[in-house]
Amino acid sequence: MKVAIIMGSDSDWKVLKVAVDTLKNFGVEVEVVVASAHRTPKKVHDFVKNSSAQVFIAAAGMAAHLAGVVASLTTKPVIGVPINSEPFKGLDSLLSTVQMPGGVPVATMAVNGAKNAALFAVEILALQDDSLAKKLISYREQIAAEIDIKNKKIQQEVLL
Amino acid sequence: MKVAIIMGSDSDWKVLKVAVDTLKNFGVEVEVVVASAHRTPKKVHDFVKNSSAQVFIAAAGMAAHLAGVVASLTTKPVIGVPINSEPFKGLDSLLSTVQMPGGVPVATMAVNGAKNAALFAVEILALQDDSLAKKLISYREQIAAEIDIKNKKIQQEVLL
Amino acid sequence: MKVAIIMGSDSDWKVLKVAVDTLKNFGVEVEVVVASAHRTPKKVHDFVKNSSAQVFIAAAGMAAHLAGVVASLTTKPVIGVPINSEPFKGLDSLLSTVQMPGGVPVATMAVNGAKNAALFAVEILALQDDSLAKKLISYREQIAAEIDIKNKKIQQEVLL
Amino acid sequence: MKVAIIMGSDSDWKVLKVAVDTLKNFGVEVEVVVASAHRTPKKVHDFVKNSSAQVFIAAAGMAAHLAGVVASLTTKPVIGVPINSEPFKGLDSLLSTVQMPGGVPVATMAVNGAKNAALFAVEILALQDDSLAKKLISYREQIAAEIDIKNKKIQQEVLL
Amino acid sequence: MKVAIIMGSDSDWKVLKVAVDTLKNFGVEVEVVVASAHRTPKKVHDFVKNSSAQVFIAAAGMAAHLAGVVASLTTKPVIGVPINSEPFKGLDSLLSTVQMPGGVPVATMAVNGAKNAALFAVEILALQDDSLAKKLISYREQIAAEIDIKNKKIQQEVLL
Amino acid sequence: MKVAIIMGSDSDWKVLKVAVDTLKNFGVEVEVVVASAHRTPKKVHDFVKNSSAQVFIAAAGMAAHLAGVVASLTTKPVIGVPINSEPFKGLDSLLSTVQMPGGVPVATMAVNGAKNAALFAVEILALQDDSLAKKLISYREQIAAEIDIKNKKIQQEVLL
Amino acid sequence: MKVAIIMGSDSDWKVLKVAVDTLKNFGVEVEVVVASAHRTPKKVHDFVKNSSAQVFIAAAGMAAHLAGVVASLTTKPVIGVPINSEPFKGLDSLLSTVQMPGGVPVATMAVNGAKNAALFAVEILALQDDSLAKKLISYREQIAAEIDIKNKKIQQEVLL
Amino acid sequence: MKVAIIMGSDSDWKVLKVAVDTLKNFGVEVEVVVASAHRTPKKVHDFVKNSSAQVFIAAAGMAAHLAGVVASLTTKPVIGVPINSEPFKGLDSLLSTVQMPGGVPVATMAVNGAKNAALFAVEILALQDDSLAKKLISYREQIAAEIDIKNKKIQQEVLL
Repeated sequence: MKVAIIMGSDSDWKVLKVAVDTLKNFGVEVEVVVASAHRTPKKVHDFVKNSSAQVFIAAAGMAAHLAGVVASLTTKPVIGVPINSEPFKGLDSLLSTVQMPGGVPVATMAVNGAKNAALFAVEILALQDDSLAKKLISYREQIAAEIDIKNKKIQQEVLL
Repeated sequence: MKVAIIMGSDSDWKVLKVAVDTLKNFGVEVEVVVASAHRTPKKVHDFVKNSSAQVFIAAAGMAAHLAGVVASLTTKPVIGVPINSEPFKGLDSLLSTVQMPGGVPVATMAVNGAKNAALFAVEILALQDDSLAKKLISYREQIAAEIDIKNKKIQQEVLL
Repeated sequence: MKVAIIMGSDSDWKVLKVAVDTLKNFGVEVEVVVASAHRTPKKVHDFVKNSSAQVFIAAAGMAAHLAGVVASLTTKPVIGVPINSEPFKGLDSLLSTVQMPGGVPVATMAVNGAKNAALFAVEILALQDDSLAKKLISYREQIAAEIDIKNKKIQQEVLL
Repeated sequence: MKVAIIMGSDSDWKVLKVAVDTLKNFGVEVEVVVASAHRTPKKVHDFVKNSSAQVFIAAAGMAAHLAGVVASLTTKPVIGVPINSEPFKGLDSLLSTVQMPGGVPVATMAVNGAKNAALFAVEILALQDDSLAKKLISYREQIAAEIDIKNKKIQQEVLL
Repeated sequence: MKVAIIMGSDSDWKVLKVAVDTLKNFGVEVEVVVASAHRTPKKVHDFVKNSSAQVFIAAAGMAAHLAGVVASLTTKPVIGVPINSEPFKGLDSLLSTVQMPGGVPVATMAVNGAKNAALFAVEILALQDDSLAKKLISYREQIAAEIDIKNKKIQQEVLL
Repeated sequence: MKVAIIMGSDSDWKVLKVAVDTLKNFGVEVEVVVASAHRTPKKVHDFVKNSSAQVFIAAAGMAAHLAGVVASLTTKPVIGVPINSEPFKGLDSLLSTVQMPGGVPVATMAVNGAKNAALFAVEILALQDDSLAKKLISYREQIAAEIDIKNKKIQQEVLL
Repeated sequence: MKVAIIMGSDSDWKVLKVAVDTLKNFGVEVEVVVASAHRTPKKVHDFVKNSSAQVFIAAAGMAAHLAGVVASLTTKPVIGVPINSEPFKGLDSLLSTVQMPGGVPVATMAVNGAKNAALFAVEILALQDDSLAKKLISYREQIAAEIDIKNKKIQQEVLL
Repeated sequence: MKVAIIMGSDSDWKVLKVAVDTLKNFGVEVEVVVASAHRTPKKVHDFVKNSSAQVFIAAAGMAAHLAGVVASLTTKPVIGVPINSEPFKGLDSLLSTVQMPGGVPVATMAVNGAKNAALFAVEILALQDDSLAKKLISYREQIAAEIDIKNKKIQQEVLL
């Protein structure tokens, strides 16, 4: 099982790194490429057509066409991550990624939602892999436990 | 393989029907329920906890919490469909559905993007089912062929 | 008389602290909890169902479902505080909090309007408590007096 | 126990009528007045200062100052209903109503959220009246039951 | 001839100071007051009713009702300056100021447009005062001359 | 005393007619011209330079440059009316009209706020004409009286 | 000299027809094709690579990637026309078309601005063709003359 | 062949410099002027009427009328660059530039898209100049090569 992450610019890496880390933590193989829908269309085409990934994560900013272009080239699930880019703070990226016409879906995450993109890829792969499914349940328990710890700290501050 | 569709109001049915039809066309079993995150929270809870679906599609308008609530109750993939509701034309639904915090992803489609929600569910299930995967490729060829037919009609109009 | 404050993340505490301070200044008992609609739904459920508070204040950012979820679990007044969160500056939080469907109201304050949430809770409780009602009138006189002082300072600057 | 409803224009009546009906259904006395913050400021002032209402509901469109003006004149709870007005579909009304500065809260409902304004007023009054509190619980059960009926209708349509 | 400047908060002074300076440069008498539509409504009322100003400039942020409230109390020209306030960058202030209902106009400037508010007040007063009218023409010539100087600097940079 | 009304397209006439009627009702002379900032720039230039009007009202939709162009050609007061045009409902017209840079003010009214543009022009002219000033006060009394009549009708409907 | 018009859907034809008519009126050869960036990416690729057009006009709605995809495949001038599509009225189309990253420009017109797309194509071609340049000047004179006729009609209505 | 760049304020120079550099790199003559549509309308008029440029690039912020004013004065291609200006981050500049009425086109680039404005001007001029056309193809190859280098760096980071 493999997830491919395509980003439109190397400046997106600081946002996407958490997706790679999350996938590795779940033991999922990950492939990463910088390729631009506008500046290297052939590279995007060749990468998608030749990749053995089961799920694609595509991240881009501004007129964020990358996820849509990837989705036009494959019937594998494509997850889009709109990048928070200046000056419109990702509103352009979000609308360019999510407002796909009927026929070619892109599963869109929150602006800069790279961690959730990785988790959603794991949720898809976990349908075929019980150990991944168990790890997802543990992960949810862990983030709930972290909130409990934060809650206790706040309780102490309130008492002050 | 089964997909569950939850909608927050029966008025969403006119948008969601195409998702049911699409899933049936692909031969995927589909379960439908009207349940509101705000007005029937227990019903949503019980439905999600007891469902045998592998993928959930949740559709709601305005402060569209339904997909997020479903996602908080399962680690199965949850696809969100923001409904075009008055007066904000689905901008509220879109932001309420897509802007999920890290840890609990919702795969968001376009406003009223019910057909794509169904197709994306099929793309997920097709990873485990080669016949579905082939049907997806045929489907893409079919919509491309439909565009060719439309193109020819326009060519004739241009000549007039 | 008691007010419960629920926040979706401990990072909201820097915004909510003024609500706690304001309630304490009015002599109203306050209970605080960090609990997430998405990451700890059961904790939110149990807290609301077991709380003896007469008024709830719920604060969250992004797809801010917390206030709506609390309101779905109680018929006590629920006040929502949309948190200013990146990148949409609280527009997503505001719409997710205020655009509730008919049947389950959330009384929404300005983005980051934690002080007003506390004051509004006091206004509700003051309907049953004359001393609180008098304190509210004094409070208004005090903020008017503060503006008079500021006005005088500006007058002096204008003369320069 | 009495609720006062102030609307900025008689054209808002078609939206506000449901609030009057809802309050009457709960057996709450209601007082209604048409008064404009901009065109009849003295009338607004005199009405608020002389009203015996425990809760105010104020509804206005466009630069919707009415709720804020009412809140500046009383320390009773003020609920704001932004009206869906052309051409901005209530975005202006919503921001004009909800973005109140610290010190003078307005509890804002969804655009055109007149029914929820009435329900929220009842929730406030129910803190002092157990029979109202019970009616609120029955009301929630009733709207949940209505959703069940709608759900059954949709189930039948899906089977077709 | 006198212009009155009302601001909703002393924090607006850093924006409004340029209006005072501009009016003084044109030799127009100016009166300044800090008074809040929400926190000191009586003060706003008394100031407007008693002022001998011919033109009012009112500046406020967020749910910026101040200019509208002033306009409801006088038939003298009222100029509104929406203040750039967090988190909505003045979009709320602009809509709250400009979207006045028919009958009570507010002449709205750009967000933070304090200098233009002063210039527009001068343009109004210049209709009755030829020396002011001449100063306005000189002012325009002066800002055109400043642009010529800036243009020359840029020309030199381009040559480098 | 004369007011000139310039509109960018004859399709704006249905919005502007109320401004002409209002000015006539106040006994103010009015001059009307259709001239486009983009399609007939010379005509706009010649009209403004040759007009004897004391106040200009300029109305346009979309990229609404007309008021700004008029203001660049005169130091007389210029009132801008953004027209509600498709598809952005006047948001583009509003921002194009109101967001003027420092030095060249445009007094902006609400989208389609033609009546208020006329009233504001009268408010300016009334500074030099006591009979106009008295008419403005009568006008305000009249619209307040109209609201009283509407209020009485609503009272009767509430009693039903 | 030839202009190619690509539209993402045959439903865009009602908007684009005016572009074809305008180009024909100027005597410019025009080629039209329906091809979707998402549903027929290969067709778009082959059309652009094989076309002998000197200028491309690409029109699409929602997540409007078509113009950007065309621009990624050619260094000929590409003009983008965002289509007014539901529910976001072309805001998504506009941002998806105009917010191109550095390196691959798309010359964007107003939402549904098909006529201007054709005129801009003619302006480009007219740099190489004096007769076209003269026709453009005549065209401007003609639309100015039309405004004069409309102006005269309005003058008569004002006199009534 | 010459391109003229007009900017509304010298503060836009930091954005526009890259356009000058890009045009020089392609060997295209460039002329630069600071001239404001609002503050120096005559200068804009005279510059455009007397310029020998084949293409105009006009950049402005806020109510960005400059490109539209230039386009009203010439039938040469006009490229608009909306400047990212406070507080609306260029949304006002974008809408003021792109939403031109039928008849007078402005080819709009992304907010702050000065480099693309220059490249688009080169694409226009390259229709008459084969050496420019070849340089454009080389430029695209060069930016694709830069992405390959960035891709390799990211690959190494992923392996760490």
